[in-house]
Formats: sequence, C-alpha cells, structure tokens
Amino acid sequence: MTSRILVMPGDGVGPEICREAVRVLDVLAADHGLDIELDEALVGGAAIDVEGDPLPESSLAAAREADAVLFGAIGGPAWDNLERAKRPESGLLRLRSELGLFANLRPAILYPQLAHASALKPDVVSGLDIMIVRELTGGIYFGKPAGTGRTEAGLREAWNTMRYDEAEIERIGRTAFEIARARGHRLCSVDKANVLDVSQLWRDVMNELAGEYDDVELTHMYVDNAAMQLVRAPKQFDTVVTTNLFGDILSDAAAMLTGSIGMLPSASMDANGKGLYEPVHGSAPDIAGQGLANPLAVILSVAMMLRYTLDRGDLADKVEAAVGYALDRGLRTRDIMDDETQIASTQEMGGAIVDML
Amino acid sequence: MTSRILVMPGDGVGPEICREAVRVLDVLAADHGLDIELDEALVGGAAIDVEGDPLPESSLAAAREADAVLFGAIGGPAWDNLERAKRPESGLLRLRSELGLFANLRPAILYPQLAHASALKPDVVSGLDIMIVRELTGGIYFGKPAGTGRTEAGLREAWNTMRYDEAEIERIGRTAFEIARARGHRLCSVDKANVLDVSQLWRDVMNELAGEYDDVELTHMYVDNAAMQLVRAPKQFDTVVTTNLFGDILSDAAAMLTGSIGMLPSASMDANGKGLYEPVHGSAPDIAGQGLANPLAVILSVAMMLRYTLDRGDLADKVEAAVGYALDRGLRTRDIMDDETQIASTQEMGGAIVDML
Ligand SMILES: CC(C)[C@H](C(=O)O)[C@@H](O)C(=O)O
Ligand SMILES: CC(C)[C@H](C(=O)O)[C@@H](O)C(=O)O
Repeated sequence: MTSRILVMPGDGVGPEICREAVRVLDVLAADHGLDIELDEALVGGAAIDVEGDPLPESSLAAAREADAVLFGAIGGPAWDNLERAKRPESGLLRLRSELGLFANLRPAILYPQLAHASALKPDVVSGLDIMIVRELTGGIYFGKPAGTGRTEAGLREAWNTMRYDEAEIERIGRTAFEIARARGHRLCSVDKANVLDVSQLWRDVMNELAGEYDDVELTHMYVDNAAMQLVRAPKQFDTVVTTNLFGDILSDAAAMLTGSIGMLPSASMDANGKGLYEPVHGSAPDIAGQGLANPLAVILSVAMMLRYTLDRGDLADKVEAAVGYALDRGLRTRDIMDDETQIASTQEMGGAIVDML
Repeated sequence: MTSRILVMPGDGVGPEICREAVRVLDVLAADHGLDIELDEALVGGAAIDVEGDPLPESSLAAAREADAVLFGAIGGPAWDNLERAKRPESGLLRLRSELGLFANLRPAILYPQLAHASALKPDVVSGLDIMIVRELTGGIYFGKPAGTGRTEAGLREAWNTMRYDEAEIERIGRTAFEIARARGHRLCSVDKANVLDVSQLWRDVMNELAGEYDDVELTHMYVDNAAMQLVRAPKQFDTVVTTNLFGDILSDAAAMLTGSIGMLPSASMDANGKGLYEPVHGSAPDIAGQGLANPLAVILSVAMMLRYTLDRGDLADKVEAAVGYALDRGLRTRDIMDDETQIASTQEMGGAIVDML
C-alpha cells in the first residue's frame, strides 16, 4: 500500500534541509521499493506570509490524511512580534494537538566521530545514548484555565495550568516502558513530586504501571536533580520519561550534551503509528539559504519515519549506515566541523548520503 | 546593634556542616567585632521527628524574629513516604513563603583550583561566574488552584497553577537589575513566552523595567534554549533572572557545571535585607555523620550573610579569602578531591578556615 508523506518545510533552514531529505526518500522509492507518495504543505511563518495563519486549514487537512509528516523547522525574527496565538510556534502546537501526537521521542546520541564537538569531557559523554520520551499534547502547554486578567487590586496577572489525568499519564508511560524494554530496560521518570500535585499523580501512575513491566527497572528523579545529573554523569540514563514542559527543557539540554544538535532527529507519535518527524534543532534564520545547514538531523528523522511509521526498519538501517559512512569519510557541515575534516555544504552532504544508498 | 542569627541545621549533613559555620561565626564575633547572637531551631525531618511538623510554630516564630537564618539542608529517605504537605520540603517552602523570601540568589562560580572537577572542558567553564536570580515565593510552587480530583469520566486528575502578577515580577526584576548593575551589566531573563501566557507577562514587565536601567543590557531567552546554552557556552551569561520553577532547574544545572556543587552558597532575601542562607547542595543522607561533607558551601553562605544582611562586606571578603587559601593549600573534602591533594574531613576543613581568620 502506498504511504502518503506530507513534507512541511517551514521556515529558515527548513526548506533547504527538507530538500535533501526528499532526495533521500526519492532514491529509496526508485531503488529500494519504498512505496510512497509525497505532498507538501505550508506551515509556520511561511504559512503566515501566504495565508495569515501558521497552520492553515488546508495544511491541517493534508496532515490528517498523511501517514507521516516530515517537518523542517519554524519561526524567526520576522514573526516574533505577532501575538502568541498567531506566531509560527502556535501552528506547531496545534498540529501536535490536532493529530494527537502525544509521544515525543528524542534520542540524544554521541556520534564517536563528533566527540570533539561536545562541551563535555570525552569520558563523560563517550558512548552517550539516551532516549527521552516527552509527553507532547498535555500538561502546561495545553492546560485550562490559561489566560490573563487583573487581580482584585487591579494588577495585571497571568496564569497557565499544568494538568494531567491518569489516562494521559498511562498512555505516555506505556510508550516509555515499551521503549525502555527495547533498549536498556531502565526507565527514569522525571517529575517534581516533592512540590507539585500533578507530579505526584504522575509518579503514582508510573508506579502502578511498573507492575506490568517487571523486566524494566523504574526509578524516579526530581527535575532539578535530573538537570544536574545530565551535566554530571549523563551516561547513567537509558530511557527517560517526563512531562511536556520538563521534556522540552531536559531534551534540549541532553541533545546539546552531544555537541551535535545538528545531527539529532525526533519523532512525535500518535496511538496508531502515525508520526511527525523533525530535527531537534530550530530554524536557524541567521544561516538560512546559504547551504550551511546540516541536513543529517532531518535525514535521520526520515530514518525514524522508516522505522516507526513505514515499517521499513531495513531501510532505516541503510540510511543510518550511510550517515555513519559520511561521517567516517570526514564529511562535515559547518556546525560539526573540526580542523581535520573537509567542509561540505547542505547539498553536498545530502548528495553524499544519496550516493551511498 | 546586635544581629540575631537563627541556625536551622535540618537533616543529613546539615548539622555537621552548620557546626563548622557556627565556629566561623564565633571567631568573627570574638576577634573581628561581629556583633551577633546565635539561636538554633528545628526544621525538616528533624522537626518532624520531634514535633510532627517540618516547620513547628516555635521555629517559624524564631525565624521571624531573627535578622538572618543560616540553613543547613533537609530531607531524606526516612520521610519520603509521608504525604507531600508533611514532608521536610514543605517546611522549607512554608518558611520561604512566610518570611517573604522572594529573591533567591544562586551564584555558579568555577573555582580555578577545582577546574578538574567539572564535567565540562576547561575552556568551556574556566572563569565561569554566573548569578542566577530565582523568584522564590510565587509561580507554580504556590499558585492556586492546585489539587487533585476526578474528570467527568471519573479519571483521577491533578493540577497546579503557574501564576504571577505584575507586582511579583517587578519586585524580582528590580532585584535582578540591581544585581546585574553591580556585576557585568548584562541580564538575561528566561521564560517560555512562546507558549505560556504567564511567561508573556513576565517578559512584558521585564521589558518595561528595562527603561529604568539603561546601563543594563536586557536579553530574553526561552527556557529550553537556556538549558542548551548553559551546556554549550555557559560563559555567555552574566546575571540570569527567572521564575521559581525554571530557576530551580537551571540553577541546579548551572551549579553542577562548575563541578563543585559542594562549594556553592545561596541567599534567599526579603524586601528589607533579611535573608535565609543555605548551601545549594542537599542533605546527602548517604554520607551524613561521617565527616565527609564539604562545609565550604555553608561557610560561603555565611559570607553572603555578612555581605547582604549584616553589612559586613569586609568580613565576607575575609571568609571568601580564607576559603581561597584553603583550596590553594590543597585542602579538599572528598567531593572535590583529586590525585594531588590531601583529603580533609568536614571538621578539618572548617578548622582550617577558622585558623586563617
Ligand atoms: C517551538 C516550541 C513551541 C517547541 C516546544 O516548546 O515544544 C520547541 O521548543 C520544541 O521543543 O519542539
Ligand atoms: C527541596 C525543594 C522543595 C527545593 C525547591 O524546589 O525549591 C529545592 O530543590 C531547592 O531548589 O531549594
């Protein structure tokens, strides 16, 4: 059956990196029997400029019909002064929510070829391989009530609500336990249960689930300690599960530990195997359009798509191997460059992957 | 006028490190004209064990009467199974709130003598000197409504509210601008204004204040990016101001960057110069009572007390210089030890500081 893939390039470096990912998909279709149909839709600032909306109805409809979305990046100074609900970011938040993409998988892997790029000492990060599972459609990002008003004394005030119910926690918990089971059998749940009621419920539900996964060791850690431990000894972690907000913060820190944030993919999954795949890095408007961006994060996002939605783990392995060869051969975009390697443009790097496939 | 100092040793290593801090205060009183009166009160698990309450009325009353509180550390596995409101942590939260200690100052400094202890590469952290100013009596730690209940479908749910009004933001903002003014004249305000209404108000008020402090450069950063930048290039920061929750997470990460969290003091200030001074590290129950804990964080907390509450910057300088000499001489507690230095017990380290004063 033909799988429909919607490409949403977005803003900044999004279009140029997505172009390379599409070349990869094209060659997999032509030479390796991948049965796909590609479509493209506007999102983010690009959509605001054309349609006045970061997630136009037509884009949302196309995303609903697709089996998987390949997402570039969104945002930039051009749209920073709009009110929040009209900014590029809110298009992404609506997309996650409308598609029910509750499980955000964010691997933080150190590529041995790039160990020099980490700010951490080699022995602290060598071999790092963490999977952060972030809840993506609940918590304080979406909790009601949220808004602004006046106190009794007439002062401006504003509020957001961090809210979870047990079904939301159980759902992401199961995903995380399954992932931990397929990895190192260790799951660390991160919360702030010593202060927050909502974290206590989170912890209770995780503990209840643990009974069903007795081959996985569940531990709990407060979020402030988790932030410390990520800096002190990140290799202690295997799989981490946490809320939307804590996951936003910790997954970015974890990604940066590797020094190769331009290399890291992510997947946002619904309950039925549909996913949105995007690089962890942002739209980098300062280098957009110059061929400087690293296309490997979005190409590795294609690999995640092949594995999790398209059921072609064989091709995912091929893509990941091609990325490994490119690094072994010394190809580097500017973000991962060092003295002994040759600099490649976005297109050259994409071309190298295509050639190897 | 005699200043009243209340010592609240708390749990774990709290009592043994506070003992060394008190020796320092005693010698300053005896030999350097510091006019103080010391009292002691129970807090945390130690108070639960005796009075059934982590902050008994008598302890709170003593803290109210004091000019400054010297706080050790609280918590431990012995009290982890109590319900949250009865745990040691809630005593600390109530103390902060009741005393109006809205401004939490958390320096993250790399001691050149201890550079080897950081997980980060020397060029990334050498000379690191950040001051994180965390709002401490508002936000999601105290926002109403908070609680647990049932959804319409009968599921357990729980919620907390992240709420700020403009007066709370302005108050911490002024403190932070003043601190930035006395330091490197750069203030980075951290929020999540692309997602949270409460962060947008935070950012608006910071921008309004900036007009009054035109010698301070104000920038804004999203909290996820701040977590990344702390790992990638922490020296870009001078003074950081943020909310209670974000400050909890980021200040712990920043402290750990230095590799010497056993060295870092903190101050929690009200509007009138009263402060609670405590080490950044926790109660470390695993090493309690063995003379292994590093007393320098609490001794440096005494230095902050001398500077911010007791108006004896001269003595603060002396204490900080004594700590520097002790490190120069190679004295190390276990947490900051390396191959070439001699190991000192809690008491030996405290004694060394006392001798130098
Ligand atoms: C752009 C922003 C709304 C988003 C988030 O906070 O979820 C981003 O930081 C991310 O992590 O994907
Ligand atoms: C013990 C806990 C309630 C506290 C907090 O979260 O504020 C601690 O982590 C801190 O940072 O002082």
